[in-house]
Amino acid sequence: MTPTSGEGAEKMDAEDGVNCSDYEHDIENEDLWDGNEESGGYWSGIYDRNKAHTKPLLMKGTNTTSQIAIIGANLCPIESLDYEIFDNEILKNDWSSRKKVQIIHYVMLKWGFALLIGLGTGLVGFFNSFAVENIAGFKLFMTTSLMSKHRYLEAFLAYAGANMCLAAAAAALCAFIAPAAAGSGIPEVKAYLNGVDAQHILAPSTLFVKIFGSILGVSAGFVVGKEGPMVHTAAGVAAAFRAPVGGVLFALEEAATWWRSALLWRTFFTTAVVAIVLRVAIQFCATGGKCGLFGEGGLIMYDVSSANITYSASGIFAVLLMGAIAGILGSIYNYLVDKVVRTYSIINGKGAFSKISLVVTIALLTSCCYYFLPWIAYCIPCPSNSTVICPSVDESGEYKNFQCPPGYYNDLASLFLNTNDDAIRNLFSPRIIKEFHITSLFIYFATIYCLGIITYGIAIPSGLFIPVILAGAAYGRLFGRLFETITKLDRGLFALLGAASFLGGTMRMTVSICVILLELTNDLLLLPLVMLVLLVSKTVADSFNKGVYDQILKIKGLPYLEAHAEPYMRNLVTRDVVSGPLITFSGIEKVRNILHALHTTGHNGFPVIDEPPFSDAPELCGLVLRSHLLVLLKEKIFSRDRGFANPVIFQRISTLDFGKAGSGKEIKLEDLDIQEEEIDMYVDLHPITNASPYTVVETMSLAKAAILFRQHGLRHMCVVPKSQGRPPVVGILTRHDFMPEHVLGLYPDIKPHKWQ
Amino acid sequence: MTPTSGEGAEKMDAEDGVNCSDYEHDIENEDLWDGNEESGGYWSGIYDRNKAHTKPLLMKGTNTTSQIAIIGANLCPIESLDYEIFDNEILKNDWSSRKKVQIIHYVMLKWGFALLIGLGTGLVGFFNSFAVENIAGFKLFMTTSLMSKHRYLEAFLAYAGANMCLAAAAAALCAFIAPAAAGSGIPEVKAYLNGVDAQHILAPSTLFVKIFGSILGVSAGFVVGKEGPMVHTAAGVAAAFRAPVGGVLFALEEAATWWRSALLWRTFFTTAVVAIVLRVAIQFCATGGKCGLFGEGGLIMYDVSSANITYSASGIFAVLLMGAIAGILGSIYNYLVDKVVRTYSIINGKGAFSKISLVVTIALLTSCCYYFLPWIAYCIPCPSNSTVICPSVDESGEYKNFQCPPGYYNDLASLFLNTNDDAIRNLFSPRIIKEFHITSLFIYFATIYCLGIITYGIAIPSGLFIPVILAGAAYGRLFGRLFETITKLDRGLFALLGAASFLGGTMRMTVSICVILLELTNDLLLLPLVMLVLLVSKTVADSFNKGVYDQILKIKGLPYLEAHAEPYMRNLVTRDVVSGPLITFSGIEKVRNILHALHTTGHNGFPVIDEPPFSDAPELCGLVLRSHLLVLLKEKIFSRDRGFANPVIFQRISTLDFGKAGSGKEIKLEDLDIQEEEIDMYVDLHPITNASPYTVVETMSLAKAAILFRQHGLRHMCVVPKSQGRPPVVGILTRHDFMPEHVLGLYPDIKPHKWQ
Repeated sequence: MTPTSGEGAEKMDAEDGVNCSDYEHDIENEDLWDGNEESGGYWSGIYDRNKAHTKPLLMKGTNTTSQIAIIGANLCPIESLDYEIFDNEILKNDWSSRKKVQIIHYVMLKWGFALLIGLGTGLVGFFNSFAVENIAGFKLFMTTSLMSKHRYLEAFLAYAGANMCLAAAAAALCAFIAPAAAGSGIPEVKAYLNGVDAQHILAPSTLFVKIFGSILGVSAGFVVGKEGPMVHTAAGVAAAFRAPVGGVLFALEEAATWWRSALLWRTFFTTAVVAIVLRVAIQFCATGGKCGLFGEGGLIMYDVSSANITYSASGIFAVLLMGAIAGILGSIYNYLVDKVVRTYSIINGKGAFSKISLVVTIALLTSCCYYFLPWIAYCIPCPSNSTVICPSVDESGEYKNFQCPPGYYNDLASLFLNTNDDAIRNLFSPRIIKEFHITSLFIYFATIYCLGIITYGIAIPSGLFIPVILAGAAYGRLFGRLFETITKLDRGLFALLGAASFLGGTMRMTVSICVILLELTNDLLLLPLVMLVLLVSKTVADSFNKGVYDQILKIKGLPYLEAHAEPYMRNLVTRDVVSGPLITFSGIEKVRNILHALHTTGHNGFPVIDEPPFSDAPELCGLVLRSHLLVLLKEKIFSRDRGFANPVIFQRISTLDFGKAGSGKEIKLEDLDIQEEEIDMYVDLHPITNASPYTVVETMSLAKAAILFRQHGLRHMCVVPKSQGRPPVVGILTRHDFMPEHVLGLYPDIKPHKWQ
Repeated sequence: MTPTSGEGAEKMDAEDGVNCSDYEHDIENEDLWDGNEESGGYWSGIYDRNKAHTKPLLMKGTNTTSQIAIIGANLCPIESLDYEIFDNEILKNDWSSRKKVQIIHYVMLKWGFALLIGLGTGLVGFFNSFAVENIAGFKLFMTTSLMSKHRYLEAFLAYAGANMCLAAAAAALCAFIAPAAAGSGIPEVKAYLNGVDAQHILAPSTLFVKIFGSILGVSAGFVVGKEGPMVHTAAGVAAAFRAPVGGVLFALEEAATWWRSALLWRTFFTTAVVAIVLRVAIQFCATGGKCGLFGEGGLIMYDVSSANITYSASGIFAVLLMGAIAGILGSIYNYLVDKVVRTYSIINGKGAFSKISLVVTIALLTSCCYYFLPWIAYCIPCPSNSTVICPSVDESGEYKNFQCPPGYYNDLASLFLNTNDDAIRNLFSPRIIKEFHITSLFIYFATIYCLGIITYGIAIPSGLFIPVILAGAAYGRLFGRLFETITKLDRGLFALLGAASFLGGTMRMTVSICVILLELTNDLLLLPLVMLVLLVSKTVADSFNKGVYDQILKIKGLPYLEAHAEPYMRNLVTRDVVSGPLITFSGIEKVRNILHALHTTGHNGFPVIDEPPFSDAPELCGLVLRSHLLVLLKEKIFSRDRGFANPVIFQRISTLDFGKAGSGKEIKLEDLDIQEEEIDMYVDLHPITNASPYTVVETMSLAKAAILFRQHGLRHMCVVPKSQGRPPVVGILTRHDFMPEHVLGLYPDIKPHKWQ
């Protein structure tokens, strides 16, 4: 072990020392190189030729920790994932011994999993819709029949009671079984694909709670989406919207950090399986299967054939204005969601009881809004040409009678006292079929907008798509009514454009929204308007704040690497952010030194340096990982002499031993049983050393290094010197070192806004 | 100038010395580091620790040139493109001085270009269809009317004469104006996006010939596609098939080497514009515009609503078998296309007259097949329930009377004597509307299959999609007829699946074909069958040879970097392929040395090393490009003293000077006017040095380095030493060094098939 800097190892924070609480804690990335060491001294002696005739732009300050987690359970410790091929001898040996049959087996396994995921997601999606339609349907049926007997108070008590019970059940599942299941899940998956392995997000218990919690939550009438357990994957988006191509593009645009064309085909295969499963299931229900109250599958479809799409200058102006306002409303939405989530995290942090109380309170509030607001709406006479019975008699009717006299219906009740999916279908319906009062639309929009904001962050699985689409559709329909004098576009179309613009204003996605809407509406002529409105709303909203998923990532303190480096990083080089001391191992190292380093540091990667007599001069051999060292130590592949390991190692250790263990099953340092006489033996690290770590020269621009780091999904990057007579590695960069918070902590003089 | 190896610069091939002929020449990549230098000596002294206890797998042989171009005009010299951000001081200075208004201007420019490309491609696509339908329509009308008067010989002469004239015109355009316009264009674009800048492929003259040559060629009745001028871009695919999402995915899956999510949105924008332009144009024609013989827009559409899709075990077996056979036929197709193209390249190489003669010969052969083969077909009685007149009287009729008596039609003539688009539409038509004889289908399939093979490679712009779809549709329909006893699937559907399987068997694309077919047919239930047949045919074909575009890339000798490194590269490290001698410059270098290096080598990049007194030890400063050196030399930014350049350089040179010049407009070494007294002055290279070149350690696995090189679209990669006391750069890698031909030339003992 060679601390190349003067400081001793004692000064470093051991991982054990980190205080792990549920909220308001520092995320101490295991990869974190100790932040309190001032490393300027190491570099100060080096004459920086590059800056000699330009002014030094930046003064180096003290290091800080990078990310502050506001919410999130058990986020400590977060490990980075390693997408790099760890090019060590054991892997090479394993590869060259692999036979054709094993390769075929592997390929079949991959496709088999893709198929299973597709089938599973499709079935879960169907089951989810099926359960929600039945539970919520029964609840609404009960309320409606009580109301038709004018037993209004009992109706409210039944309605609110059912909602609160369902909500409490959802919250209890979430609080006691899998706290990680709360929220949308998309930010966590996005972070996971970026290389951040937040604990428990992929645990089976989380999946279980996601499925049942979201059924209960949606049935309880919350302004949340039922895509909760599914949007984790492209398959989930395909299931939620029955849009296979849109699902692939969603994964590509929003979720994935890196992408290979082989993945495209496999993802598409999976989403296609989902779409087919759903189609078969819905056909089964439609053709006389016993699906109870399950109607049209709860999937949104806009019948565009009856709408009138005429382009006019005033219509386009209205659409532009609608996009701009939606951009502003969307960014306000994001801003308020951020504030609310931060507030809720304090309440949720006080324990399971607080969590459940919060959920029940919001459920009560939602029930009150839904039940009492329709009373202020006008009663509208039933249309004479309607093909369905008016007022409706079934639970999911379009024409709710509510308090109105026979032959009349309450348009606001038709929106509030329905499932979210039915409400969206109502809003999307063309003008010829249905009309809403301006006041009703305004009340509905304002209520959904506010409820959507205060609902996200409570401890239930909650999709964000549906609330945004609901609010957007109401907004669009309202807008269409307000501007009906200057445009001939249909109100249903306006509702669709409103939903698109709200999605653009909050989520800031583009292509996938367009394609999903294209797959839903099946009309190419809509496309220019959808693109226009998305472009406007996204551009407007982007000038205020970030997308809602990025905000949640930040609140959760997940160290997400952005696709683009911050502009000021162009003026920094890699050595400017490297912090020391660097711990390195010799190619053949004493057990004692390894144990000491593992005990006293939280580092996950160590450079291996070969020294004389094994080489002419100190030279970079590669990089070993903590987890691989633990395998070697557990297998006790030691020798008394300082020499190369016996080839028998290839029989004792295989690549399977290096596989990522399930949560809680990894080898722990405390579990090692090293005897007294073994502690002074030697370990040959070469077989487990990654001989091809990614390296950058110390003068590499930090911006370029960040792109390199992210594009290859790295965990460690070695910094090598640019001149002779120095150690072969001068530092290691991890995800943490590229975080803007870390860099700005080191250089408080940088004014990030100046670079925007 | 410091040749770090002992050999003098005289031994290297200067670029001027390369023999540039039209065919059968070595492509001397300008980046090529001289291949005849045995560089093993340089490395032999270094003790290779990594291999010390494993056997040396590979013996290093002599270097060879990497790529042999078989066809292609003016491919010499090919320059590599540089997608890397060249991080020098002039660029940084320019960036920091850029104002908000300039950034907005830049963004608007990007979107403006995307819009213009979309509009242009849409209009060209429409114009193309419009022209073909009118020219070919007139030709067919003439032939049909002569035949109806039983003047059969005159009809043949008119038909064949028209075809040969059109063909000769297309060939003349191609031979005299833009030889680079011949062929499909997709391989060249794929190579360009990979970083290979073959000359003239993007010249305006090439575009002109692509447009008019393809109109003439398609009108001449060749088995070629009219997508020639358009498939260059995603927009082109969108235009050819009216499938905006399919176009984006085609670009993503097949064409692009690297991809950013920002591109996704812009590409989608462009393809959407194309789709809308086409739709508007077709509506204009349909609603009474003066479009002459332009009918349904020449775009393929399969009306799936009348087809019967029932899944049965025997039906799925038939589809599987069809996919497998299509895979075999597809790989034979690719094999024969390869042979034919190699043969034609010898003929085409003999000059313009040979080129035109070949084209006219094939045109005559095609005319003979098309005109005489229908004579052996049976006459079929006209259907009684037909909605169109039978036999047809107009030029694009479905029921060609040909030689048959009144009330009868010739099904083979309905395929042959039509445009390719109409033939495809006929083949796709559901069974209920139209049936073909088995012999007619077999004759048609065999003819199109063979003509498709011998047509590609002649000197006209020729798309490959349409021939493959034609052959595949005929094959599928034939297959459906042969297996009609065991499956209930419609023949038209079989034709569609046949087209999909043939596309899979030759082009080896998957998702984009699926999505294009999905967009054309608009039925999700088809999707499983299309995916199944594609998967089978692609897998079967892949076990024989590569996709047709990859083959053409290879024949053309374009040094294309594959997405995956060859497996044997895992056992090589970067220094194993570095060849010397390395030419480096000092940070402040004499004009004489720079001129000498530029004159005597063909290198395009040179490492810059700072030496005492400007640094404590020799250290890597960065990399300069030849083109940037030429700008500095032309501007004569010299000084008498060995010191840093005056900041006035930032006023004299801007990043615009470093923009890639148009073909033939770049600064040439001969144009420099360096005076006698200037030759011993100094140039400060720092302002133009890329201070952040990508570097790898000499022991980096070649496979990983290749992936790094490709993913970042690099042109040069510096190899740095792994130990102390050596020069800061020990070699440079270019595209050439990763080519399998080059690596296998260095190590003849590697058996690539052992690694498959």
